[in-house]
Amino acid sequence: MAGARTVYRHRVPFFDTDAMGIVHHANYVRYLELSRVQFLEEHDVPYTKYLELGIHVAVTRVDVQYRSPARFDDIVLVDCWLEWVKNASLRFGYEMRLEAAPGALVAQAGTEHAAVDDHGRLTRVPRERRDHLRSLVTTATPSA
Amino acid sequence: MAGARTVYRHRVPFFDTDAMGIVHHANYVRYLELSRVQFLEEHDVPYTKYLELGIHVAVTRVDVQYRSPARFDDIVLVDCWLEWVKNASLRFGYEMRLEAAPGALVAQAGTEHAAVDDHGRLTRVPRERRDHLRSLVTTATPSA
Amino acid sequence: MAGARTVYRHRVPFFDTDAMGIVHHANYVRYLELSRVQFLEEHDVPYTKYLELGIHVAVTRVDVQYRSPARFDDIVLVDCWLEWVKNASLRFGYEMRLEAAPGALVAQAGTEHAAVDDHGRLTRVPRERRDHLRSLVTTATPSA
Amino acid sequence: MAGARTVYRHRVPFFDTDAMGIVHHANYVRYLELSRVQFLEEHDVPYTKYLELGIHVAVTRVDVQYRSPARFDDIVLVDCWLEWVKNASLRFGYEMRLEAAPGALVAQAGTEHAAVDDHGRLTRVPRERRDHLRSLVTTATPSA
Repeated sequence: MAGARTVYRHRVPFFDTDAMGIVHHANYVRYLELSRVQFLEEHDVPYTKYLELGIHVAVTRVDVQYRSPARFDDIVLVDCWLEWVKNASLRFGYEMRLEAAPGALVAQAGTEHAAVDDHGRLTRVPRERRDHLRSLVTTATPSA
Repeated sequence: MAGARTVYRHRVPFFDTDAMGIVHHANYVRYLELSRVQFLEEHDVPYTKYLELGIHVAVTRVDVQYRSPARFDDIVLVDCWLEWVKNASLRFGYEMRLEAAPGALVAQAGTEHAAVDDHGRLTRVPRERRDHLRSLVTTATPSA
Repeated sequence: MAGARTVYRHRVPFFDTDAMGIVHHANYVRYLELSRVQFLEEHDVPYTKYLELGIHVAVTRVDVQYRSPARFDDIVLVDCWLEWVKNASLRFGYEMRLEAAPGALVAQAGTEHAAVDDHGRLTRVPRERRDHLRSLVTTATPSA
Repeated sequence: MAGARTVYRHRVPFFDTDAMGIVHHANYVRYLELSRVQFLEEHDVPYTKYLELGIHVAVTRVDVQYRSPARFDDIVLVDCWLEWVKNASLRFGYEMRLEAAPGALVAQAGTEHAAVDDHGRLTRVPRERRDHLRSLVTTATPSA
């Protein structure tokens, strides 16, 4: 895959499991956040820089498809890339795999975001940041 | 709207908020679970009955679209209904609103599920339960 | 037991369980919060009123002793009372039981709190509120 | 400080913060788990080995004293050591600091544990493991 991507390496804590013995599905939504925060830090600027500019990158949509479960102490690799960037919104794509079995997907996901100010109103991402984010967009998914 | 539906009434705990002062987006995925568990109890059988049959209703997909935020102490009404039921899978639809402002959506969502046994293998929902669940399917959404 | 107390009734969600099949121990700390928020609402003023005064009731200590586990769909009764109130701090006591087996404790706990302003600095609870809170203090525990 | 210790390095995720802008107090209880799991892996055997022996190290007590808050993106260092080991129970001690300000405590804590079998019954830690764990006990705290 060409373009910018980040692989967040997450060891599953016991507290993320549920009584089925697997990671509770809601927790993967948190793994996406960990991965895209690392993406911004590695390829753009730390998310704290956006906060200093008074910009919050609010989540407007989350879509997760679960393929096979992860369990306590598994290493989950959360692959993250930018799918598109518009004036005030953007979309990340994700794929999760177990480090011990990288041939199989744990989950695929996408998150959409809107830039909002401290009062929760839609705002534009500053042009400089937006241009840079656009340069990071990847059209091919890792598994393609 | 005709058909079976449940409205789960959820008061937002402080621990569900984040540093933006609003409910963290991952927590709404939990609200969906609370609402569909109540749906089963009100219209079908308690989820614990499925567990006793050795059937887990695993989540295979979650899709949430966030419209406007909820905050600490808000009452969120989580409306839940069955969109379709197949042999070994089904889909719930959801709409969330604030009790204090029912005209605006907090979020819309859908979750898809597969029946699995204690070993995580796909299994059929027993015919009796499946027929009953099918009778609960609703084609119109509340806001339609 | 004389004095003010609240019993918060909490049905255990599936997402609060862990791979041992029981409620993960960290989640009980959240149950304490739910109970004391209800205590303030029933016996004092809603916590949102404190926030409007610019007062946060920060947690300075949590102590939980776990006696027997709760499981998915159990009804946990979280009994809460005020143990003491000082100028800028106070302590709640708690006992948790299963509604289905009220003779046995699930857990005993205590939380200590300090009043802080919007900047996190220690501040006094307004005299009127403090005097009222003091009138609510209970010296005997429910199980005594 | 002599004796075995582990320092777990934890970067605060956004989802761990609350509407006060700081890490919600219940989340620190999870940080303790992350640190003691690393302690076992570094100095004893991975916790998964205990699970394979049919032994769960249940939590019987948690005590946390909060000193100063951590915020999004802070690096929290969670120092962990063994305070004592008995036949079927043990106690860990903890201190948390910010990597950026190691002179000030974020929190001090202790957790007590009992060994239980797959059915939740008290059981002895196998002698070999117990003897080894005892050899790891530290009597001085890091800040002493």
